[in-house]
Amino acid sequence: MRVHVVFAHPSSASFAGAVRDRVVRALIARGHEVDELDLYAAGFDPVLTPGEWTAHVQGGANLAGIGPEVERLRKADALVLVFPTWWFGMPAILKGWFDRVWAPGVAFHLPPRGGPLRRGLTNIRSFAVVTTHGSPWWVIALGLGNPGKTVLMRGIAPLLAPGAAIRFLALYDMDRAGRPRLERFLEGVERAFRSFA
Amino acid sequence: MRVHVVFAHPSSASFAGAVRDRVVRALIARGHEVDELDLYAAGFDPVLTPGEWTAHVQGGANLAGIGPEVERLRKADALVLVFPTWWFGMPAILKGWFDRVWAPGVAFHLPPRGGPLRRGLTNIRSFAVVTTHGSPWWVIALGLGNPGKTVLMRGIAPLLAPGAAIRFLALYDMDRAGRPRLERFLEGVERAFRSFA
Repeated sequence: MRVHVVFAHPSSASFAGAVRDRVVRALIARGHEVDELDLYAAGFDPVLTPGEWTAHVQGGANLAGIGPEVERLRKADALVLVFPTWWFGMPAILKGWFDRVWAPGVAFHLPPRGGPLRRGLTNIRSFAVVTTHGSPWWVIALGLGNPGKTVLMRGIAPLLAPGAAIRFLALYDMDRAGRPRLERFLEGVERAFRSFA
Repeated sequence: MRVHVVFAHPSSASFAGAVRDRVVRALIARGHEVDELDLYAAGFDPVLTPGEWTAHVQGGANLAGIGPEVERLRKADALVLVFPTWWFGMPAILKGWFDRVWAPGVAFHLPPRGGPLRRGLTNIRSFAVVTTHGSPWWVIALGLGNPGKTVLMRGIAPLLAPGAAIRFLALYDMDRAGRPRLERFLEGVERAFRSFA
């Protein structure tokens, strides 16, 4: 498969960077083709422009500023997101990748009479998210119902191919995790992606 | 009260812009002082920088690029956010305002032994969110448990003053709403903010 890996962290030397490295290594070992987009390294601008907004409200899309990103998304057989969870959700640079690149006619189609979006990315048959949280699991999942996971797994994943495989791998309470627990998480990630399909 | 109104939409001619106008008008009529931050008009960059991230992991904050925004947040007695909900959450430009401006030592304090964040913005005694959704209420609230509302009202609001008043005003199914329903929403918003305290 051609796997589009989208990475959103200001530093490759971070733990998220180490996660990304393991994901990519395991995918290549598995024989997949990896198309990596490092949003920070690419200088991606996450702010939806007035021109893009105007096109959206007219029912279309202005892809002039995001052509290559759209092309890579459309060519992917699988999508993997690697990012730290900040404020219970994606870093702004990744949120804006959705705001801009997941445009009408690309990621979804608006039903003429309103209601839920219709799926647009039926090329993507496999979807995985790997993220880290500073907060403990009980704060995020028990206390808040894991809003970041809900958005991706239940809000966004239904726009992919029907029956697409979805996976959510998360490390919680990272701020208190010692080296052994971090290392175990990395190993778990690598193991998971060595059988990625 | 000094009310910090943060607006996140690429166009003031949008419905969100009309909502913002009503909010500001009602607050002024009520006798409040309004400090408005239009993130798009200000050209706010929502991307947390490598230098800011490095400061965070060292337990501090690098406020060099966000001094004025931090100052305005610290001086506020109340905070009002006006934005369209995109992909079940805030536009990237507003998400990044949290990522960058709600820094350690400003919005929260990290407990030395981990666990939930401790509140930092005890100056803010009143908090309101006004947002719009293209999707119907049943998709957002029944189907997904309203993740965007959860993040703001249950994840973020606890960092404000103990007992702070919180309000969430939302329009759903905007894509199918006719002019009368939009107008009723605007009137409801204005009424709500005419008694804002």
